[in-house]
Amino acid sequence: MTRTIDRDDLERLAIGAGILGTGGGGNPYLGKLHARRLLDQGLTITVVPASDVPDDALVTTVGSIGAPVVSNERPKQGEEFLVSLRALEKHLGREITHVTCAEIGGSNSMSPMIVAAQANLPVVDGDGMGRAFPELQMDTFMIYGIDPTPAVISDPRGHVAIFDKLDDPTTLERYARTVTVQMGGSAGAAGPAMSGRAMKRVLIRDTITLAIEIGDAALKARATHADPVDAVLGVAGGQRLFRGKIVDVDRRLVGGFARGELAVDGIGPNDGETLKIDFQNENLIARTGKGEILAVVPDLICIVDAETAEPITTELLRYGLRIEVLGIPAPEALKSEAAMRYVGPAAFGYKDVAFVPLPGHFANNPNAFDLDAAMSHLASRSCGSPVVR
Amino acid sequence: MTRTIDRDDLERLAIGAGILGTGGGGNPYLGKLHARRLLDQGLTITVVPASDVPDDALVTTVGSIGAPVVSNERPKQGEEFLVSLRALEKHLGREITHVTCAEIGGSNSMSPMIVAAQANLPVVDGDGMGRAFPELQMDTFMIYGIDPTPAVISDPRGHVAIFDKLDDPTTLERYARTVTVQMGGSAGAAGPAMSGRAMKRVLIRDTITLAIEIGDAALKARATHADPVDAVLGVAGGQRLFRGKIVDVDRRLVGGFARGELAVDGIGPNDGETLKIDFQNENLIARTGKGEILAVVPDLICIVDAETAEPITTELLRYGLRIEVLGIPAPEALKSEAAMRYVGPAAFGYKDVAFVPLPGHFANNPNAFDLDAAMSHLASRSCGSPVVR
Repeated sequence: MTRTIDRDDLERLAIGAGILGTGGGGNPYLGKLHARRLLDQGLTITVVPASDVPDDALVTTVGSIGAPVVSNERPKQGEEFLVSLRALEKHLGREITHVTCAEIGGSNSMSPMIVAAQANLPVVDGDGMGRAFPELQMDTFMIYGIDPTPAVISDPRGHVAIFDKLDDPTTLERYARTVTVQMGGSAGAAGPAMSGRAMKRVLIRDTITLAIEIGDAALKARATHADPVDAVLGVAGGQRLFRGKIVDVDRRLVGGFARGELAVDGIGPNDGETLKIDFQNENLIARTGKGEILAVVPDLICIVDAETAEPITTELLRYGLRIEVLGIPAPEALKSEAAMRYVGPAAFGYKDVAFVPLPGHFANNPNAFDLDAAMSHLASRSCGSPVVR
Repeated sequence: MTRTIDRDDLERLAIGAGILGTGGGGNPYLGKLHARRLLDQGLTITVVPASDVPDDALVTTVGSIGAPVVSNERPKQGEEFLVSLRALEKHLGREITHVTCAEIGGSNSMSPMIVAAQANLPVVDGDGMGRAFPELQMDTFMIYGIDPTPAVISDPRGHVAIFDKLDDPTTLERYARTVTVQMGGSAGAAGPAMSGRAMKRVLIRDTITLAIEIGDAALKARATHADPVDAVLGVAGGQRLFRGKIVDVDRRLVGGFARGELAVDGIGPNDGETLKIDFQNENLIARTGKGEILAVVPDLICIVDAETAEPITTELLRYGLRIEVLGIPAPEALKSEAAMRYVGPAAFGYKDVAFVPLPGHFANNPNAFDLDAAMSHLASRSCGSPVVR
């Protein structure tokens, strides 16, 4: 279903994307304000289902790269996504016909909305993560074999860096990350470019709509004095993992990432227990004081305000906040053997932690991603490609 | 005069460029072998004077970026310059008509020879330094206001990074350097692109011929049992600063650069004296044991074998070598007020060292560079450009 995004949708999207951001991905707040201003100027944002996109379309994602804490302290100039998109088009010698979302979690949910309004391009409903992740190679486009380059980053001064002829997304991540740090810690990115046909094989579908529906459920529950956390889980799937009060946050900026640990003392049903959560922009692993793993990446560990289900991103964590920790099963796209190399516990340094999936399904929907189609895309380019070595 | 480069010219060029490299710029040896193989394959290399280049020509430089020590231990794949040149052409949407030399000192003397043979393009006789320097912004193209971007770097795997819309060469240096480190410490570069007219205003002319003539003088002196060091100084200008034996080398790889210090005990006329030389890829400052500065950047501090005048590059420095330290006056292009910001002692961290030029003229020729023409080019684009802020 084609959907025209209005101001209320942006509010809903900000909440849903904040929750799916699992603490990272950046706060959608500034992006929401930007998108809203574009709507106020009479520009329009249209979201279309992947099934409506022609096979010969040329689709790309736009988003921010960098530490969320930098994005918050140095807001974007506003044209970074568009500058990157135009530089990508010039490099390809072809016009982009659709944008889609690299990561629905956090501020990058708003990035395609902004550039869609600026460039008058439709947004394909879906994304490459179903959540947020800290690095470029951790999306379904890269996991399932879309060429990582050409890709473009640009900064508030209009500086442009184009990367090309890399077939290894992890190398692109290194190159782009290091220039991002030199650009001041945050940049706008465009890429990878892909055909409509390829996009349809690797996109996690309908996650923009999902995020809007999560936000809608939270807002309606707040208005009707129902439980917002229950309402969110009703749409997103998953379960309550822990209720508590933040008692310590150790946060540091390392190599362009916000890394750290969070300590929570249980309250209510978890009275007397403790929880530790490690994060690298996003929440990676939740362990009880006894060392039991309640959830681990790629499953979603989402921290929300215990009363309102308002998402609490990594940079907003502080002593005394009363939180509910939610565990939401990752999309099937992130739980395949192919995906584990990029987004399993070992990819984040937890070499001895096995991934034991949370029960249930992302968005209560086992069919949000066609793994067979994605694997056939990956197989079609596996010959000699470092992506699958 | 148009000159066709033959195998003997490559030998002469390697010696002259090695001396002008002032210890850095990389050893021309591997590049010489590469260029020689291309000549053996029947390809040709033609060097033309700047005055023969049409105003509407499109000229660029090609060269290596990175630490010489890495280039020696990981030789180029061979196509890096050409890959970068072609990517630059594609990005500009125009064909390059001529290449020239970014730095005549060291291995980058050979880079335009290689790509000229591969792409069948003439090489303009001259360069942007008259020596070697460690950073991109330290050439006459950047000092006198050529747009630093677009610029391209590529690595042995064919990875390409294009930088655009930067008007500050020091920022380009940071971006390109950091990607170079990620690429493994050495990459091939192409850029900046400039019109024939602009090139003629900012090029240090005839330095390819100069380097060949320096090498020719050294070889002829060796063959005739004359003094090769005197022969070199007769062509290059300058004087003997110190004769001695290397007694210590402290060398470390920092941020992609070979930094360090060299200690020399005097012999012959300098018996009983000591000398210290600091280097960052290139030799920067030569000080006696009493603290007297014998020469300082941008003047050329060249270390050669005391008997043969064979250049000794930074990475070949070792205990026991008997050396002659030469001081050659820098080209006028590097001694202007505009140039001092980029290549004066303070630009290398010697904040309290005034530049006291060596007597005489580079190549015994006060007219190798037209400073008025270069300054008029700089003034023509000074409005709002960070280059001259």
